[in-house]
Amino acid sequence: MSEEQFERDRGSEALDQMLGQSFKVLDDGFIRVVDYMGSDAAIVQAARVSYGKGTKKVREDESLIRYLLRHHHSTPFEMCEIKLHIRVPMDTWRQWIRHRTANVNEYSTRYSVAIDAAYATRPDKWRLQTRRNRQGSEGMLPLEQGEHFSRQEKELQDLARSVYNERIEAGVAREQARKDLPLSTYTEAYWKIDLNNLLHFCALRMESHAQEEIREYATVLGEEIVSRWVPLTWQAFKDYRFEGISLSRMEQHILSKIANGNSGKAIELAESFGWLQKVDGKLKQNSERMEFEGKLERMKILIPWAE
Amino acid sequence: MSEEQFERDRGSEALDQMLGQSFKVLDDGFIRVVDYMGSDAAIVQAARVSYGKGTKKVREDESLIRYLLRHHHSTPFEMCEIKLHIRVPMDTWRQWIRHRTANVNEYSTRYSVAIDAAYATRPDKWRLQTRRNRQGSEGMLPLEQGEHFSRQEKELQDLARSVYNERIEAGVAREQARKDLPLSTYTEAYWKIDLNNLLHFCALRMESHAQEEIREYATVLGEEIVSRWVPLTWQAFKDYRFEGISLSRMEQHILSKIANGNSGKAIELAESFGWLQKVDGKLKQNSERMEFEGKLERMKILIPWAE
Amino acid sequence: MSEEQFERDRGSEALDQMLGQSFKVLDDGFIRVVDYMGSDAAIVQAARVSYGKGTKKVREDESLIRYLLRHHHSTPFEMCEIKLHIRVPMDTWRQWIRHRTANVNEYSTRYSVAIDAAYATRPDKWRLQTRRNRQGSEGMLPLEQGEHFSRQEKELQDLARSVYNERIEAGVAREQARKDLPLSTYTEAYWKIDLNNLLHFCALRMESHAQEEIREYATVLGEEIVSRWVPLTWQAFKDYRFEGISLSRMEQHILSKIANGNSGKAIELAESFGWLQKVDGKLKQNSERMEFEGKLERMKILIPWAE
Amino acid sequence: MSEEQFERDRGSEALDQMLGQSFKVLDDGFIRVVDYMGSDAAIVQAARVSYGKGTKKVREDESLIRYLLRHHHSTPFEMCEIKLHIRVPMDTWRQWIRHRTANVNEYSTRYSVAIDAAYATRPDKWRLQTRRNRQGSEGMLPLEQGEHFSRQEKELQDLARSVYNERIEAGVAREQARKDLPLSTYTEAYWKIDLNNLLHFCALRMESHAQEEIREYATVLGEEIVSRWVPLTWQAFKDYRFEGISLSRMEQHILSKIANGNSGKAIELAESFGWLQKVDGKLKQNSERMEFEGKLERMKILIPWAE
Repeated sequence: MSEEQFERDRGSEALDQMLGQSFKVLDDGFIRVVDYMGSDAAIVQAARVSYGKGTKKVREDESLIRYLLRHHHSTPFEMCEIKLHIRVPMDTWRQWIRHRTANVNEYSTRYSVAIDAAYATRPDKWRLQTRRNRQGSEGMLPLEQGEHFSRQEKELQDLARSVYNERIEAGVAREQARKDLPLSTYTEAYWKIDLNNLLHFCALRMESHAQEEIREYATVLGEEIVSRWVPLTWQAFKDYRFEGISLSRMEQHILSKIANGNSGKAIELAESFGWLQKVDGKLKQNSERMEFEGKLERMKILIPWAE
Repeated sequence: MSEEQFERDRGSEALDQMLGQSFKVLDDGFIRVVDYMGSDAAIVQAARVSYGKGTKKVREDESLIRYLLRHHHSTPFEMCEIKLHIRVPMDTWRQWIRHRTANVNEYSTRYSVAIDAAYATRPDKWRLQTRRNRQGSEGMLPLEQGEHFSRQEKELQDLARSVYNERIEAGVAREQARKDLPLSTYTEAYWKIDLNNLLHFCALRMESHAQEEIREYATVLGEEIVSRWVPLTWQAFKDYRFEGISLSRMEQHILSKIANGNSGKAIELAESFGWLQKVDGKLKQNSERMEFEGKLERMKILIPWAE
Repeated sequence: MSEEQFERDRGSEALDQMLGQSFKVLDDGFIRVVDYMGSDAAIVQAARVSYGKGTKKVREDESLIRYLLRHHHSTPFEMCEIKLHIRVPMDTWRQWIRHRTANVNEYSTRYSVAIDAAYATRPDKWRLQTRRNRQGSEGMLPLEQGEHFSRQEKELQDLARSVYNERIEAGVAREQARKDLPLSTYTEAYWKIDLNNLLHFCALRMESHAQEEIREYATVLGEEIVSRWVPLTWQAFKDYRFEGISLSRMEQHILSKIANGNSGKAIELAESFGWLQKVDGKLKQNSERMEFEGKLERMKILIPWAE
Repeated sequence: MSEEQFERDRGSEALDQMLGQSFKVLDDGFIRVVDYMGSDAAIVQAARVSYGKGTKKVREDESLIRYLLRHHHSTPFEMCEIKLHIRVPMDTWRQWIRHRTANVNEYSTRYSVAIDAAYATRPDKWRLQTRRNRQGSEGMLPLEQGEHFSRQEKELQDLARSVYNERIEAGVAREQARKDLPLSTYTEAYWKIDLNNLLHFCALRMESHAQEEIREYATVLGEEIVSRWVPLTWQAFKDYRFEGISLSRMEQHILSKIANGNSGKAIELAESFGWLQKVDGKLKQNSERMEFEGKLERMKILIPWAE
């Protein structure tokens, strides 16, 4: 770590060009990069404080970043930081803000009049409650019903806004006037976070179980912004984490039997784990078994107990 | 720190008796203590790990706790932890959740149907926007207007709920159906925090500039719960922090002159700080001067430049 | 979440019986539980705030805990908290303290005379630097050399202590006198952490790449303490996390071919990933390939490219 | 917050010129700025997200920053971030690392051979243990004794190093060989922190009770680096926080009497607080009274009970 060799991190040219540019999300939301610090090179630089320097060819930087990410050496990724300006419905913001490791300056509806925009759902975008688990959605409402609900939503949002405006005009305190605004009302914030925590945000919120709205934001963040800012890191994140799967102790045992061509033994093991209990001749719901089946399907491996 | 002398912290009898008991807040909110760890004695015990033990008379415990709090030795207070079950309007929760150092399990309106209760403002409780600063409220709307706004609020909340219910019945995903619920809708959460961060929460949210709703919660928390859980700590907190004031470099200079009977010199100093500029013969708004005047009034000390 | 049904969490009988009891670690270190909050039941209780209640049979609690852990729903685990008193060499403490999410009160060598004990390495315990990677150890020094180094260590530790004592007697400030104490000197601390972060600590520090000393502490923590405190959680942690493995995008592709009996295609894929480059007829070092080979060996699956 | 007006924060020219430059601390330590994000202007920009925009004259920016700092509106200061490369004795690092809100990459003595430098105390720099409280130092050892201790320290550090080197040459694992290095051994780290937490670090570590060594680092950080990076913020920090004092409830009461010329009543109050108990005709030690006397002296106000 000779200090003579200091060279300022050049950041990311691709991100420099995107500074201030808005990425539209939903009907009236956006994300834009306000400022940032660091790059793939800065991650490597920080790692080399710990692990010692070596040659600095591109290939080696990539290997090091992939190694760090694969082995959960998270501190070098914390050396990069990004500051975003976002516009997002309060409903989505309620989920977003649960990530506690970020710095936040939110638009204040105590100081200022609330933003006059609410997230409107289009007639073809009303989602049905999934039956498979208690969370999430699946499929769409018929368009005709959707049209009814979109019309009804517009009326409700308009009414709520006019009530709000009437209160403001009557001199009601802004902090109180806002209390019946719908959760669909847009808010804005500066949101600043380090890359390690941002990747964690993307992992959780780009995932198929995340609610569609926040998934749209997370996907823009990941695929449009992070991917250009730190391309080596993003590729490693995709390879190891986002598209990676984990295998439990039990799953490893069964997979071992399958790979060795012993599907009888695989079934025996699954039975011993209590995964194959039947009711009326049909396999009982068992989430561990069903999740494992999903992994096998994804790897195009036959399920031993499938009929 | 001989390990032979181990004695389990006995906690707080007063708090033991309150476990599970609800403290009502607002029209339909509450706070109740679910569990806790530690006591005044546990703070002393932790401090003595660092500072060495001594005799253990009550008086000395009190002195030590007061010393720790006065000198911002915060780590011993972190050794106490409390877990609360709260019911609170989402609007208030939006402020509450900004305290990032707590653990949170919130009632999920993705998994479950939203709680069927909204915070209703009574006709005599509509607050006027303050003119003195851009934040906060001051005074009340006339009762007649208040009656109009309370009636209007009831209708809006009822309509929003019926829209929500209609969506749920039509099979709309819960995560989406909720999007136009008013911010006044109640939510619930388990909220767990250490005593040091809880005191910080109380300091910010019991304060006169905090919004009235969260101030009610913070006051119940502080005056009903913390005061019984750790009475020595609570008294120290009141004496040094909550009822304490700070004096800036400039304020100390001026106060020095006042206390020495030299109000001419005090005025000179205030002028040199730019606090006494006039427009049309009247003192210009200057927040530093006005805040200092507030401190002098509170201490019943004459303002040298008052007429 | 009816408040009528409140029942205080009973905690863990097994842990109650261990309060204050020391678990010895290394030659003069220990861990003991000072206090705690929560249990497997408290995790379930917190989860049901979010996910709604259901029946409360043991089996269902176990399923829910396993589901939460498997799906990284970490907030219910944050509802449990434990406070430990530990005695540990400063060298190990340097690694320990890097876990930033805990509360800490450390024995102060500014206030008090340093603890008169240093961790001594036994003649048969001098480890050799591993050659496989730049980190870690492997194998032992010959006993004769070990005896030399243990003797030499004793002399150095004794000298350092006598220098320290001489300074203290001469009136040198404790904060300065300590500056040449060896890193092997013991320190003590109260360390308080929530269960979620404690599991993370165990995952990182019980792992085979962790340094032996901290691994001993982490293992006592996990196997002796956490396993009795929250047995259902601990079993789930072992099954999914500690004994789980992850498969990258590339590894899934190759494993798919193997499980389908197509080892030729598996080799092709590995080649396309750059894993099978040769130098002088031998496979070049490639950490991604070697890690995958390790996973296959663990699952007793033949490595397609093995000779 | 119109997005058309986006202008990238220009950072700080003064800091740009210092990038990579080392500030020497102690005999062989240093601090240098590796990278940073934000400026006084960025704080204003973030605050205006919450508080609405206004005119942007310099004077108003300064007022806003001073207002934010005075009123503990900390989130806009979190929008600035700095990354430092530091070299510091492990003994000092043990205090430094207790600030948990930073990102850290430390030089690893598991991966690399320990840095061959230890902090040596000069003969005229051996401090005496203070008698006034149990912490800290006061006055110096006589030079002759200091020469003895410096010589002795050199021998001990050299011996410890040669033992370390002998272990390394014999193939002992680096992670184990290091265990008897003295705490005075230098380490290095990348340390990244936001401005709000950095000011907190400076407030605690520049203070007169902080240990001299870390105070030197904190002073360089504050006076050389932060003061140039965000000059408006630094001045506000000095005026309100670093050179500010706080007055407890009791102190305000007494000061009120003093300022109103009623020193008899001031003494009565002090007595009622138990501050003026006597033993053998002399005032008993009482830390609250003595701290208040310190504040009065600082403000050049006569102590009513002084003789």
